[in-house]
Amino acid sequence: MLCPGSRCAPLTLAFTRQGSFNVRVFSDERSAAFIALGIAQQTKQTVILICTSGSALYNFAPAIAEAYFSGIPLLVLSADRPTEWIAQQDGQTIFQQDIFGKHVKKFYQLPQEYTHQDNVWVINRMLNEAINLASNQQAGPVHINVPLREPLYPSNQQSIYFTKAQRIIQQKDNESRLSDEIKNLLIQQWKQYNKVLIVSGQQKAHPALTQLLQFNSEKHDLPVVADILSNQHKLESTIQHADAFLGQAPANLKESLQPEMLITFGAGLIAKQVKLFLRNYKPIIHWHIGESDQVVDTYQSLTHTVTTSPETFFTFLSTLDKKESFDKQKKENYCQLWNLEEQKAKELINSFFPTTELGEFEIVKEVIDHLPADATLHLANSMSVRYANYIGLSKAHGNIQVYANRGTSGIDGCTSTVVGHCLANPNKLHVLITGDIAFFYDRNAFWHAHAIPNLRVVLLNNHGGVIFKLIDGPADLKEVDEFFVAKQQLNAKHLCTEFGLDHLVIDNRKKIKNQLKNFFERDNTAKILEIETDSNLNKQIFENFKNKLKERYES
Amino acid sequence: MLCPGSRCAPLTLAFTRQGSFNVRVFSDERSAAFIALGIAQQTKQTVILICTSGSALYNFAPAIAEAYFSGIPLLVLSADRPTEWIAQQDGQTIFQQDIFGKHVKKFYQLPQEYTHQDNVWVINRMLNEAINLASNQQAGPVHINVPLREPLYPSNQQSIYFTKAQRIIQQKDNESRLSDEIKNLLIQQWKQYNKVLIVSGQQKAHPALTQLLQFNSEKHDLPVVADILSNQHKLESTIQHADAFLGQAPANLKESLQPEMLITFGAGLIAKQVKLFLRNYKPIIHWHIGESDQVVDTYQSLTHTVTTSPETFFTFLSTLDKKESFDKQKKENYCQLWNLEEQKAKELINSFFPTTELGEFEIVKEVIDHLPADATLHLANSMSVRYANYIGLSKAHGNIQVYANRGTSGIDGCTSTVVGHCLANPNKLHVLITGDIAFFYDRNAFWHAHAIPNLRVVLLNNHGGVIFKLIDGPADLKEVDEFFVAKQQLNAKHLCTEFGLDHLVIDNRKKIKNQLKNFFERDNTAKILEIETDSNLNKQIFENFKNKLKERYES
Repeated sequence: MLCPGSRCAPLTLAFTRQGSFNVRVFSDERSAAFIALGIAQQTKQTVILICTSGSALYNFAPAIAEAYFSGIPLLVLSADRPTEWIAQQDGQTIFQQDIFGKHVKKFYQLPQEYTHQDNVWVINRMLNEAINLASNQQAGPVHINVPLREPLYPSNQQSIYFTKAQRIIQQKDNESRLSDEIKNLLIQQWKQYNKVLIVSGQQKAHPALTQLLQFNSEKHDLPVVADILSNQHKLESTIQHADAFLGQAPANLKESLQPEMLITFGAGLIAKQVKLFLRNYKPIIHWHIGESDQVVDTYQSLTHTVTTSPETFFTFLSTLDKKESFDKQKKENYCQLWNLEEQKAKELINSFFPTTELGEFEIVKEVIDHLPADATLHLANSMSVRYANYIGLSKAHGNIQVYANRGTSGIDGCTSTVVGHCLANPNKLHVLITGDIAFFYDRNAFWHAHAIPNLRVVLLNNHGGVIFKLIDGPADLKEVDEFFVAKQQLNAKHLCTEFGLDHLVIDNRKKIKNQLKNFFERDNTAKILEIETDSNLNKQIFENFKNKLKERYES
Repeated sequence: MLCPGSRCAPLTLAFTRQGSFNVRVFSDERSAAFIALGIAQQTKQTVILICTSGSALYNFAPAIAEAYFSGIPLLVLSADRPTEWIAQQDGQTIFQQDIFGKHVKKFYQLPQEYTHQDNVWVINRMLNEAINLASNQQAGPVHINVPLREPLYPSNQQSIYFTKAQRIIQQKDNESRLSDEIKNLLIQQWKQYNKVLIVSGQQKAHPALTQLLQFNSEKHDLPVVADILSNQHKLESTIQHADAFLGQAPANLKESLQPEMLITFGAGLIAKQVKLFLRNYKPIIHWHIGESDQVVDTYQSLTHTVTTSPETFFTFLSTLDKKESFDKQKKENYCQLWNLEEQKAKELINSFFPTTELGEFEIVKEVIDHLPADATLHLANSMSVRYANYIGLSKAHGNIQVYANRGTSGIDGCTSTVVGHCLANPNKLHVLITGDIAFFYDRNAFWHAHAIPNLRVVLLNNHGGVIFKLIDGPADLKEVDEFFVAKQQLNAKHLCTEFGLDHLVIDNRKKIKNQLKNFFERDNTAKILEIETDSNLNKQIFENFKNKLKERYES
């Protein structure tokens, strides 16, 4: 992934001439870095980002932060002036050393002299370390700053030679096993507690893990709370609508749902109501399972962290004995209680559609219901991912994977990230559901020479940041339209003409079926499916939805 | 300047309800920060930038770096979660403390508790200090991070009160005077050296200083080298084309032009050839005059720095005695030599146009020649500012001021910066000359609800980064088109339709006069004047230009 410049010419020539790299060119560094992130997320391989000196590098920052908090491997190679020329009023020069602070796993400053043999050694060593560090179990971005002296270009007569036998330091990850101490502790606590709740945070699709959860859930009567980004929809008994029902459930119900033992894995949850519920109805014991050794205490109840893969953990859990008699009954009851609420919420949500007037919530449901089997679903921040999470995926969606930039939950690179997925995996249809602010914000996602015929964007255009009308707090303020929603007038028509994208429009319910069919059809160009709706209508629909959920507990 | 969000709601409400702020809303933080920078540059007042927590803040980074190196006062107020919630998998949370590193003058973390009286005191003190720091003589960006606990919104019944008598700590800048020691040293050196050269770097227009330079230049026979961003075009004897003739001048001429004493002020130069000349033909003594106490040694010959305003320095210089007899003759000869080269370069440049075929270089000349008196000229990086600098402004351009983002010389916010100028000074016509990469990169400059009828953009569209064909080095590489120029196919037609901008096109020489007339006419909408040209043609024209300059020394 190359963003052109002059100072980076030696890197450009090295990577293009070496022959084994697939070098792609993008001009807007902000978008480029998110595209790189998408490729890395799709391929699970480190993507190299090259840029020239100066503010070019700083434009990578939003994607670097997202990669850091999402654990996506990126290797940034920034060209720089030699250190003695920093802040000497020479052009395109900023303070590049350590520029991303804690948002990279590590920063390396390469030596700027190559004559001494030790410098050659240390460059090899640093690059090996950086490459391994980016992609190890706790993946993330790594930054290498490369000071380069002039001349930056070879003369006509000069050739570039590549050393054939570069030393590669291989990183061998040790096998992850549970220690006997952990096993014994777990056996002991497993006996002690009956109300055991599993919460799966954001997680790549992982069929083996899902099977393990299925097995454990059935064997041990365990409710598994997951949101749409947990990619656990193939698990039959998953509790997907906890955010919906916990938001309205009365205190006595929440008390019954309170776990004694909480087991979590994966990254954060979208579901704010689940977070609040667990913070207010704390478990006695909370085990978090993950490769990272950082202590994340989202629910303020953490008591045990186990540095291993969820697979290893649940494999062991599946070997534990089933509970007997009275304890078994308690577990069954607890699990049934969760399942009952889930079932009712699911029914209510299904019966909620179609709404009286056509709003964007219904479009999200239609799109999810009709996703082709070869699709991947991408959800932009901030309302799109919430709408989709209320609806959820089902077992019928099979191997469809769901992605969203929830590391920082920014709107700054949602489309670019999906473009990265499109480039990395041309066999899949990549379907993004996005709002208008995120879409127009990141419009340079389309400004490049690479074909993305497998991109599909569902654009929920309510001409502003509708989330501020839907969440509690700002909705009633007199400032809401001007200073929160930030109304904007565009639709995607001209943008589609400009970039040669197909533009499909849904302006009434009758068109949905046909337009979705056209939309999902394979073609030689990307397609944008736009629905323009009034933010007040969407607000009304969303309030009705919450009221329906509430009514259930009042009658 | 507000970028909407939920975490920043308390700041939004405080600034909108307080009543004395002109709050403007923008959705793309990258563009917003450059617009803020433009406003601050135009008004010479600190602009406050407010954003919500998360990667929103990181999108300010490119403009923050530009503001730091250009000395433009910005005050960033970023909303944040309380510190205990950082990296706890809660949404829109990054490491905001000290995020801009050395690119801000200072970082402040506000306390997150307000109950103790000392916290109230320290918030007042910090804000006073930050406001003063941003705008003092060595202006620049300052960052205040504001951790905010929920609830973020007032309930319906709650009112917001403003304390009437906030303490304001007034910053009184001391008078800047030259000490007797400096004066005596200067008098002594003034006697010693006859070849004295003044180089004015990038500088805001400053009529009193220009007058002082004029007076000194005449009285003491001093050549004053300045480029287009020095804003010294009202100075009659200014050497504006040094970059052009020094690039081709033979060694013996350069030896004659070598100064014994160099006096510099202002920021960096665009002119690479002037930098190289001064590094290779070093003065014996180099005085740099400026408010900053940072030692910038661009020409590798610095011997004295004086922390005062150029005005103070040149006021004193004007009181020194004129040289007598033989010394006077030496000074006159030296000055005449520079003036002669300037004169010849100027004639050559004027006779170079019109070129055989119409290229973008000629358009830049036509635009500059026809600038209306109430215009301000803005130059985008990277070729536009170079073209314009070869042409230069003359005394006839009067009070027209010239701006460019030369702090970091980035292409990332050139248009947005000019939008800021348009908003801050509606009486002026703000004319930007830009290339296509910079233009499309920063297209979100147009994505907001604020009227900018006084914006005029000259778009030199050569469908790529043409600079890589014009500078030595990459032009001859086989990779140049794909990996340096990064060809792009767009023109501005659809963008203009989308944002409701007038789109004027010049596709042959006959249209220039009429289109320029239309272009400069006041109207109720912004106008884009586009010329699409082939990058190889522009390359040819630029090479011809350099050859003409060279021929002069060969015949």
